[in-house]
Amino acid sequence: MITVHPLNQSAVTTIQSQIDSKTKPLGALGALEPLALQLALITEQRVKLLSTSDNSVIHSKNNISLNKPAMLVFAGDHGINEEGVSIAPSAVTKQMVINFLQGGAAINCFCQCNDIALTVIDCGILVPLAADELPQAIIANSQPSKFTPQFKESRLGSGTNNFAIERAMSISQVEQGFAKAKQLVEQQISQGCEILLLGEMGIANTSSAAALMSFFTTYGVEQSVGRGTGITDEQLIKKIALIEKALSRFLPLEKNHAPLTSTEVIEALSQLGGFEIVQMIAAILTGAAASIPVVIDGFIVSVAALVALRLDQNVANYLVFSHVSQEKAHQALLEELLSAQTFSEYSGQTLLDLGLRLGEGTGAALSLPLIKAAASFYNNMASFESAGVTV
Amino acid sequence: MITVHPLNQSAVTTIQSQIDSKTKPLGALGALEPLALQLALITEQRVKLLSTSDNSVIHSKNNISLNKPAMLVFAGDHGINEEGVSIAPSAVTKQMVINFLQGGAAINCFCQCNDIALTVIDCGILVPLAADELPQAIIANSQPSKFTPQFKESRLGSGTNNFAIERAMSISQVEQGFAKAKQLVEQQISQGCEILLLGEMGIANTSSAAALMSFFTTYGVEQSVGRGTGITDEQLIKKIALIEKALSRFLPLEKNHAPLTSTEVIEALSQLGGFEIVQMIAAILTGAAASIPVVIDGFIVSVAALVALRLDQNVANYLVFSHVSQEKAHQALLEELLSAQTFSEYSGQTLLDLGLRLGEGTGAALSLPLIKAAASFYNNMASFESAGVTV
Repeated sequence: MITVHPLNQSAVTTIQSQIDSKTKPLGALGALEPLALQLALITEQRVKLLSTSDNSVIHSKNNISLNKPAMLVFAGDHGINEEGVSIAPSAVTKQMVINFLQGGAAINCFCQCNDIALTVIDCGILVPLAADELPQAIIANSQPSKFTPQFKESRLGSGTNNFAIERAMSISQVEQGFAKAKQLVEQQISQGCEILLLGEMGIANTSSAAALMSFFTTYGVEQSVGRGTGITDEQLIKKIALIEKALSRFLPLEKNHAPLTSTEVIEALSQLGGFEIVQMIAAILTGAAASIPVVIDGFIVSVAALVALRLDQNVANYLVFSHVSQEKAHQALLEELLSAQTFSEYSGQTLLDLGLRLGEGTGAALSLPLIKAAASFYNNMASFESAGVTV
Repeated sequence: MITVHPLNQSAVTTIQSQIDSKTKPLGALGALEPLALQLALITEQRVKLLSTSDNSVIHSKNNISLNKPAMLVFAGDHGINEEGVSIAPSAVTKQMVINFLQGGAAINCFCQCNDIALTVIDCGILVPLAADELPQAIIANSQPSKFTPQFKESRLGSGTNNFAIERAMSISQVEQGFAKAKQLVEQQISQGCEILLLGEMGIANTSSAAALMSFFTTYGVEQSVGRGTGITDEQLIKKIALIEKALSRFLPLEKNHAPLTSTEVIEALSQLGGFEIVQMIAAILTGAAASIPVVIDGFIVSVAALVALRLDQNVANYLVFSHVSQEKAHQALLEELLSAQTFSEYSGQTLLDLGLRLGEGTGAALSLPLIKAAASFYNNMASFESAGVTV
């Protein structure tokens, strides 16, 4: 498995006093202040990692560096959609992947606005893209613009099985997904990426996410399930029943939020997971292991973060929670995740609360300027002493 | 006075259907959707204005354009600070102005992050900057970087009078302030600025702002007053008593939120105002009159927006409320201001809620990427039809 280092809690006092020396009343930058603390601690850990492996890339210990932000959007299809748990047919996953690659989706706009390189990953959509379905810009790829999305094939199959009636995927598919995503993220980091943002696309993936949330927490299925992009009351009742049925299937591994072995976690993923969710878990672990902040988007990505935490609790402090979505269960899940962070007092707060419910990584992309702003005030603001301000 | 045009409400349906045709579930971009609607309506009004005055600068009717964002930070000192209503001496206003000009403050960091040109305006600090107190970069000004702050003198005096015991300024100072700020903003617009962001600096200016809020709304002084940057209980009680005293002084013009004549509004400003607050009111009116969106920062700027609304209710639809600050009265004031907007259903929401309480325009600067993102999805996202998505 991937090893994530704990942050150096003994550096908190020094970093906090640097924040407090800036020309502003104590705490006046609100939520940006604990964020700057977190980023500085992650940077300190990263410097430590790099200094033991490669002396040529040591950053100034005091400066937070967030170069080459990379948005990875993981796409996959879900067998359970044959039960009618979403407003859309599975074919829409592929249509949206093509929309991403053509630059027409919300995530394209927000990545371009905020200078984020976008990579779209086919983790196992129902029917793979044919060569002639790739946009011209990507086929040519000789002179791609900075904002031409990249496309990666990382398929684990042609959609998962319907997890209401059988295992979503094999154990070996889970392991293969972990390996592929680890390699993908390591490649991004080796190319200079210093902050990772995650998004997803997969019709019916809120069903898989809700099942995993209920498995890995004390929340019942009714609390974990929401309306996705807008299903009816009837569909909602059916969605709950199907997930209950799936969860009741794999005894003796009962619903359990107590410490689990990694074998048990992988068993649960094989039963309930999605190809894109499995790969996001490994992406989160790999980013955290390299001491890179990982920006979490909405409900689905947050569930991936929850599972990553169940594999390694140290992950929590590397996560930045971008927004709270309209999906009902997201607020509850965020409380679980935010309370696992130990670098400062429990904030209970995401950076944004705009009523978004789109996924794709849109909330994560929109939050990046705030993250950069936190880094910037930490790196660049004058102190009372240096500015000659006498408060 | 300055005339602000109402937005063309009959264009709402067309613009909303354009938003609804984008490749996302209806409403899935949350608060960014009414924001895009507002920006598109303002753009439509601007196109109309420009087409009657200057045919060479007509923008595409469908595209929102937010070029050359300009942050104007208005600074002024307040006579009431001699009563000890703030944690800081008035000298700090000037020290912070120098800090802004040297690039060391939070607002410098956030303007630089978000590509905003910063202008600092001395509206009447206690002691004007001597030539040798201007940073070298500004004196030279031959090769200023994009992020070298500009400095403007727009002084109405050397701090206001102590409004607890006498009129803060003369009627003629108010009128002079209006004229100066109008000219300043018109200059920015003529240089290509298409979105205005406002900030302020002025030790004790929450006292003046609270007095104005209580004068222009039904809120009592206890509801309008907060702790500013952090005064004690004792100071708070004193602050309330002083403002009550000031408000009780100028009968027969009693506390009144009913329609007032502009003469009455100007009388209230002369009694209770601040040099920076007066100039911000005119800046807001001038931006709105030119159909430029005006981004409102924290409590003090919101009070300026309130007074601008009392002079012309049409201003409301041109305002973007960036954040809700920790200053207690700000939430109440925002409800008053947001409920005056008529382009969509009452949202009751600012873009950010990060617990900021710094002023300087920091919240406004931090919100700009969200405003640009709203414009970008409106301008650039594909429709279901154009992308071939079948939901």
